Amino acid sequence: MSTATIGTNLTWHAGDVTREDRHQLLKQKGAIVWMTGLSAAGKSTIAVELEKLLLERHKHAYRLDGDNIRMGLNKNLGFSAEDRAENIRRIGEVAKLFADAGVIAITSFISPYRKDRDLVRAGSKPGDFIEVYVHVSLEGAEQRDPKGLYKKARAGQIKGFTGIDDPYEAPENPEILIETEKTSVREAAETILRYLEDRGYLNA
Amino acid sequence: MSTATIGTNLTWHAGDVTREDRHQLLKQKGAIVWMTGLSAAGKSTIAVELEKLLLERHKHAYRLDGDNIRMGLNKNLGFSAEDRAENIRRIGEVAKLFADAGVIAITSFISPYRKDRDLVRAGSKPGDFIEVYVHVSLEGAEQRDPKGLYKKARAGQIKGFTGIDDPYEAPENPEILIETEKTSVREAAETILRYLEDRGYLNA
Repeated sequence: MSTATIGTNLTWHAGDVTREDRHQLLKQKGAIVWMTGLSAAGKSTIAVELEKLLLERHKHAYRLDGDNIRMGLNKNLGFSAEDRAENIRRIGEVAKLFADAGVIAITSFISPYRKDRDLVRAGSKPGDFIEVYVHVSLEGAEQRDPKGLYKKARAGQIKGFTGIDDPYEAPENPEILIETEKTSVREAAETILRYLEDRGYLNA
Repeated sequence: MSTATIGTNLTWHAGDVTREDRHQLLKQKGAIVWMTGLSAAGKSTIAVELEKLLLERHKHAYRLDGDNIRMGLNKNLGFSAEDRAENIRRIGEVAKLFADAGVIAITSFISPYRKDRDLVRAGSKPGDFIEVYVHVSLEGAEQRDPKGLYKKARAGQIKGFTGIDDPYEAPENPEILIETEKTSVREAAETILRYLEDRGYLNA
């Protein structure tokens, strides 16, 4: 395939724009940083911090979370077992599109079932799916309880709440383990950043 | 809000990473270039060409098309009226996420119903949704018929085919009109590129 240099950093290949072309443009590789863990484990907080650290490095990241997914793409889903699985499936598909676009997608959803997470992993390109288990003890989560959800679940006002009356299936071999009770938000985000750096995601 | 300069191009705002931060990083604004038109109008071909032109300008674009949507996010949808609407709704939601991420999303789907397209427009941020009507006469489309689909539809082997036994509702006020039979693919892509340039999408 013929190539020609455009500007200083970009090698242009004849034919369609490829994922590798986008990597060269962005000087990074697309990936899915998939946070999983109990409610109040700190997933979203760490995701926000990680996104900042990446922006400081001039890297293009995008967070998929309840705010931009539940009211949009997945607003026609409820909380049945089927809908929960479909919720995670769609998030996974969107994250894969972002990774294909060269973006570092950061998802922060409880995603309690191993099977649902493993389906996203299985459908991702090798190396794209980085599972981050944000671990907190149930006691720790209940003590934090910033939205009072555990309290309501314990009182029976919320049914099927993960960790109380619905299971959380912890990852068996996550790429990264964050123990929220032993680390700061900043350190957690830096741990993930270092993983991305060491494995070449922050270069093209 | 306090700001500090990082590197040469990026102004860092305290707080979460915003859409504007991503615009500064990418030196462009996110948008949805929504191609609509009959099968064989040339939507995908123009989309591929536009993506190349944008990459040459070091702009970050991403195409959403049948190849990466129908087999992934929308693989659980069929061709009922309800599923067709849901197909376009999901594509619209994903395109909005890409625009929010600062990317120029280029969609190339027939998207025959005005109501479905207008719902995406109504849910997009002002200025984000750029409707591109890729017009071809039905005769012209039937003469091209690269996949033999019109022939099959005329023979009754495909039911509900847009333009034959299902309506195509043309945009009334598209941002851009491309008349495929009067222009080359390159010219069509350049017309869209010029629109993006003139309206400031290619700068932050």
